[in-house]
Amino acid sequence: MTLRPALLATAVLLALPLAACVHAPAAAPAAKPLTTQEVLDASTPQDWRPLDPENTLYVQLESGMVVIELAPQFAPEHVANIRTLARGHYYDGLSINRSQDNFVVQWGDPAGDELALRRPLGGAKAALPAEFSRAAEGLAFTALPDVDGWAPQVGFVDGFPAARDPKAGRAWLAHCYGVVGAGRAMAPDSSNGTELYVVTGQSPRQLDLNITTVGRVVVGMERLSVLPRGSGPLGFYTEESQRVPILAARLASEVAPEARANIEVLRTDTATWQALVESRRNRRDEWYVHPAGHVDVCNLTVPVRAVERKPAAP
Amino acid sequence: MTLRPALLATAVLLALPLAACVHAPAAAPAAKPLTTQEVLDASTPQDWRPLDPENTLYVQLESGMVVIELAPQFAPEHVANIRTLARGHYYDGLSINRSQDNFVVQWGDPAGDELALRRPLGGAKAALPAEFSRAAEGLAFTALPDVDGWAPQVGFVDGFPAARDPKAGRAWLAHCYGVVGAGRAMAPDSSNGTELYVVTGQSPRQLDLNITTVGRVVVGMERLSVLPRGSGPLGFYTEESQRVPILAARLASEVAPEARANIEVLRTDTATWQALVESRRNRRDEWYVHPAGHVDVCNLTVPVRAVERKPAAP
Repeated sequence: MTLRPALLATAVLLALPLAACVHAPAAAPAAKPLTTQEVLDASTPQDWRPLDPENTLYVQLESGMVVIELAPQFAPEHVANIRTLARGHYYDGLSINRSQDNFVVQWGDPAGDELALRRPLGGAKAALPAEFSRAAEGLAFTALPDVDGWAPQVGFVDGFPAARDPKAGRAWLAHCYGVVGAGRAMAPDSSNGTELYVVTGQSPRQLDLNITTVGRVVVGMERLSVLPRGSGPLGFYTEESQRVPILAARLASEVAPEARANIEVLRTDTATWQALVESRRNRRDEWYVHPAGHVDVCNLTVPVRAVERKPAAP
Repeated sequence: MTLRPALLATAVLLALPLAACVHAPAAAPAAKPLTTQEVLDASTPQDWRPLDPENTLYVQLESGMVVIELAPQFAPEHVANIRTLARGHYYDGLSINRSQDNFVVQWGDPAGDELALRRPLGGAKAALPAEFSRAAEGLAFTALPDVDGWAPQVGFVDGFPAARDPKAGRAWLAHCYGVVGAGRAMAPDSSNGTELYVVTGQSPRQLDLNITTVGRVVVGMERLSVLPRGSGPLGFYTEESQRVPILAARLASEVAPEARANIEVLRTDTATWQALVESRRNRRDEWYVHPAGHVDVCNLTVPVRAVERKPAAP
């Protein structure tokens, strides 16, 4: 599946939330604080990283592609199971069954609790341990100095918004816009990756430490966030015809290299990232008259960009 | 597999504009902390208030009605101008011209900066002072004890999410989901209410104290939040055909009483409100295993309900 045109436009949009030309010439380091655009313009190739094909899931909708970066460092068992499900084409032909305003969009097997009707899992596991948090040790955690009411500390790990409790020695993904989690029932260990949701509204941080998060949408959020809200409880669609088909879901590693989305994500462990965070904490764009002096972990969108594909050898 | 049990309260809260569970029987006060649903079920008529018809704007879209509660206590000049514009039917036939993912939807005169083509303002003022904040004195401010990184203090004023700086003696509306503001150009005093936007994504609190806020959407957010994102800079639509017509915008006071939307908003200066806030701060729904012990002002959605219209006298 080739998806570059849509991705290009989308990636540019995501990379520049306040818009501007992505090809603007690199600015020389300025004495004054930089705007976000100036930080991006001055970024170097080393400030960006490609996605690992083993951690990249392409979800094909009729409206186009959604690209999810998986986070095995936070939910190794769930991510391994999602890889197995994707390799077995488990998600193909399932659907988005829920869109709740200012909360989440959720997809999976429309058979729901009707176990007899549910699609077999193939080689995937039906039961997994809950992975609500992990040991903070061993994670490259770039902490924000900014206060957070939900956790002792927030920051970024490999481009994912995250939280940390130094006393407990635990870390977890923060439920920010675009974060993907594994739906569960009452039992904390009742998720297995067959049912996935993505945050489409104000960050529902109350879900942190209550459910397993598995990654985040890096491209294509606007294909999910606009889905009509369901009129049933919790925003579930009440008519089968309202469900949005998932045409296919593939790991990038299962797709021919020339057909993969050539996108890069800004690294969050660099001086460029620190400069970008500061440009969001205190907006220097001419329009602003009152720099906030603060930024919320969920108000920081990690830039994504499309990169030119190297021409194939003749 | 769904998030159903835990999120039922959330669903009901968000679905209240659709009049869900309005007639649930009142529950006896329980010894244990109450869930959000239990708080709403136990609410009394005195816990709810009707909207003031002079502060209620009906915006009619092809998809249905959006109801905005205006906040003259925060932006008296802008609200007065918006009333004048609505009475002159200024907004009728204009359009929604912008939808930027995870940020705002904006409507107004599609002629934009082409002043010669812009619709005349009738009796409304072309220029107003900036109303980014107001004196905190004289406002019934129900403060949250929860920390906020964007302002010294946050809470609610007459149902509006708000922030306050006790030292400076100023207060302002917080840019939470559903809050409506008056678009401006570079000059702080360049807004006049002809161009309005509503927050459709993660609370962009960096806009606080940088622009004039005029109210909030109390019903119909789901008609705005699903609008296709524009592909132009800042999410503006690039094709005229993409614009969403505003069929009409009317003050409720200009509409026959029997034709008004009979809705009530939960008061935010009551013990019931305090109990509701606590039910969001520490979720008691059976699904949750980790009460957060915190709530963000923008994660508190003030409940709205439809009420039975009294039968007309024979």
